[in-house]
Amino acid sequence: MEILERAGDLLSIIREEKPLVHHISNPVTINDSANIVLALGASPIMADDPSELEDVVSASSSLVLNTGMPNNKKLHAMILAGKRANALKIPVIIDPVGVGFTGLRKQFLIDLLASVSPSVIKGNQAEIAQLGGINSLQRGVDSAVKEWSNAKLAESLAIKYDCVVAMTGKSDIVTDGKTVLSIDNGHHMLSQISGTGCMSASIIGAFCGVSEDCLLSAAGAMLLMGISGERANERLNKDQGIGSFKVNFFDEIYGIDKKTLMKRGQIHVL
Amino acid sequence: MEILERAGDLLSIIREEKPLVHHISNPVTINDSANIVLALGASPIMADDPSELEDVVSASSSLVLNTGMPNNKKLHAMILAGKRANALKIPVIIDPVGVGFTGLRKQFLIDLLASVSPSVIKGNQAEIAQLGGINSLQRGVDSAVKEWSNAKLAESLAIKYDCVVAMTGKSDIVTDGKTVLSIDNGHHMLSQISGTGCMSASIIGAFCGVSEDCLLSAAGAMLLMGISGERANERLNKDQGIGSFKVNFFDEIYGIDKKTLMKRGQIHVL
Amino acid sequence: MEILERAGDLLSIIREEKPLVHHISNPVTINDSANIVLALGASPIMADDPSELEDVVSASSSLVLNTGMPNNKKLHAMILAGKRANALKIPVIIDPVGVGFTGLRKQFLIDLLASVSPSVIKGNQAEIAQLGGINSLQRGVDSAVKEWSNAKLAESLAIKYDCVVAMTGKSDIVTDGKTVLSIDNGHHMLSQISGTGCMSASIIGAFCGVSEDCLLSAAGAMLLMGISGERANERLNKDQGIGSFKVNFFDEIYGIDKKTLMKRGQIHVL
Repeated sequence: MEILERAGDLLSIIREEKPLVHHISNPVTINDSANIVLALGASPIMADDPSELEDVVSASSSLVLNTGMPNNKKLHAMILAGKRANALKIPVIIDPVGVGFTGLRKQFLIDLLASVSPSVIKGNQAEIAQLGGINSLQRGVDSAVKEWSNAKLAESLAIKYDCVVAMTGKSDIVTDGKTVLSIDNGHHMLSQISGTGCMSASIIGAFCGVSEDCLLSAAGAMLLMGISGERANERLNKDQGIGSFKVNFFDEIYGIDKKTLMKRGQIHVL
Repeated sequence: MEILERAGDLLSIIREEKPLVHHISNPVTINDSANIVLALGASPIMADDPSELEDVVSASSSLVLNTGMPNNKKLHAMILAGKRANALKIPVIIDPVGVGFTGLRKQFLIDLLASVSPSVIKGNQAEIAQLGGINSLQRGVDSAVKEWSNAKLAESLAIKYDCVVAMTGKSDIVTDGKTVLSIDNGHHMLSQISGTGCMSASIIGAFCGVSEDCLLSAAGAMLLMGISGERANERLNKDQGIGSFKVNFFDEIYGIDKKTLMKRGQIHVL
Repeated sequence: MEILERAGDLLSIIREEKPLVHHISNPVTINDSANIVLALGASPIMADDPSELEDVVSASSSLVLNTGMPNNKKLHAMILAGKRANALKIPVIIDPVGVGFTGLRKQFLIDLLASVSPSVIKGNQAEIAQLGGINSLQRGVDSAVKEWSNAKLAESLAIKYDCVVAMTGKSDIVTDGKTVLSIDNGHHMLSQISGTGCMSASIIGAFCGVSEDCLLSAAGAMLLMGISGERANERLNKDQGIGSFKVNFFDEIYGIDKKTLMKRGQIHVL
């Protein structure tokens, strides 16, 4: 399929150009984000002090804003960096971690999105629904929710912010509000390691750092995550578990190439 | 033994109910705490900004306060969250990292325990002795200290704060001030990975999130840590070391079940 | 060679004395620094609050200052701790992460080095050049720069601050401004995991914690990093990658001994 081929080409470009992906993140997953960007073949830079944000944004190929463990200082830094990135036409990827979970997280995203235009918003169903203004879905929501409504959720948010939305789930949905793509790769163990969502956003950041096609970039990142999760699981012995899965997952992100992407990628236009 | 059977039952309940374990922690080990909770089958949430603590505590099944890398801001957050948890009868687990090491750490714990009632305090011998008002034991203290005095140390602290005390060591001691349990599982390599103590507290948090029996919860967590450490070591090849041990350890926490717990658990009432 | 033998002896002393290595670091790599110090057989302590720095410095055998993710609060803490360490003749190791990258990072190091005398500065070529006052080298600089100029870069910085300089690269250069050592161990995969530089500084901290010979300490640490990287790669299967490499690397640091160091070490005096 053409998308797989183009995503595979971007992967090669990432490894050649090594785009610098600037993160403002949180202490839980910041190490995983740095390592996944390096494993993929790009370069991470972590910086959040206002006095160096302009320098760092200007030197970077993309900006990833992860709103986990929010506070006002971080909001201030993200707005500063995000505005600068917007002005320089550097793509901004927003990962609204647990946005519906607390009042602070809701207000944080309202304020951030009032000041910064994202190129891509990546979240799970509950996060995307929250940002779209749909009543927050509860934890434990039936994950077998219809693909139709998932696509509508993502589409409506993409239109609202004129950006690409990548919604993770059993099937991942990626849309720019016009084209809607569904990706059927992945493995349930990905949900039992911390930072999977953050790493997805980091990989989107690497793709967006070498391409202006954010739909393709987000789809490429989701494919990489899903396929690498599947292959990480396939390599487990019967006495191994989640620790070995995470190690294998990094191995796979490091080793995945265009050929594997094209062979294993399950993507279709809805 | 009955305790092993009941701890094994709790393990199944954790995986079914997936209790949300709220952490206020430190940047060194926060990722390990998140991952161990996920590996076990529960859900972690990390949040420390005062403006969202009430929301997060209210939605959680337990609260783990790890006092490593202390500062006044963290103390303020912990007191706020801890008081809220006390009011809502949500169990609070305190991990007094290196409490005897500096004046700040001593004062931090004095202030925290003056405001917050813990359900469980987990620490090593030096930390438990410090909190109990016994002169701080020095680094390098003979670890073959008599089991009798260990039990007395833990008991006296449990009575002082009317809580369960889990004291790690060659044998772990778990007591509510009445019953004293000794657990003889474990492996010395656990002491050569960062965050073992923090992960123990996180697992206690998961157990306490599904049971009101804090003695059983703390014992169950100590058993899981110890048995998983033993099994992690058993799976090492001769050319492997501490890196592989940590991976195996996460595998074991992920895979351990009631049967293994009952077969391997070394616990007795003192 | 005599240096290898003496470095191997220091390794045994580290495992016997377990020096306490105090770090003021950053959230990206702080966990890796703690784990590498433990894997090596020494003890890490992480503390950055001004109110406990005097206590912690006084109890430690060395102080590692990692300037990644800089801000003014961190600068203040590092100056406080560094001055105290200088007064107590506790060796200070400075890792000037990305010093040439932003105005803040340049000024941070200028201020830090105006107040604190380092025993060792460890950095890559661009960082050492920046600190030495040579125009910052750009990203993507030809890494096959002549060994001669590398040695001169390191030497001039060592003389400027009367300290040892450890400059990482294809060949590592270690010099006190008089003797110049070149180390030819290492593997390119080390550059694709986050925290390699930080871990190098941590290991230098462990060596400096048991020896006053900073040249030997820095050389020993560089040898350990390089040899362990080589051996980590040799143990990879063909379907493994960077995740397994990192695990193997920790295994190797844990297991390396004097014999391996002497057999594998590639060091010569320039």
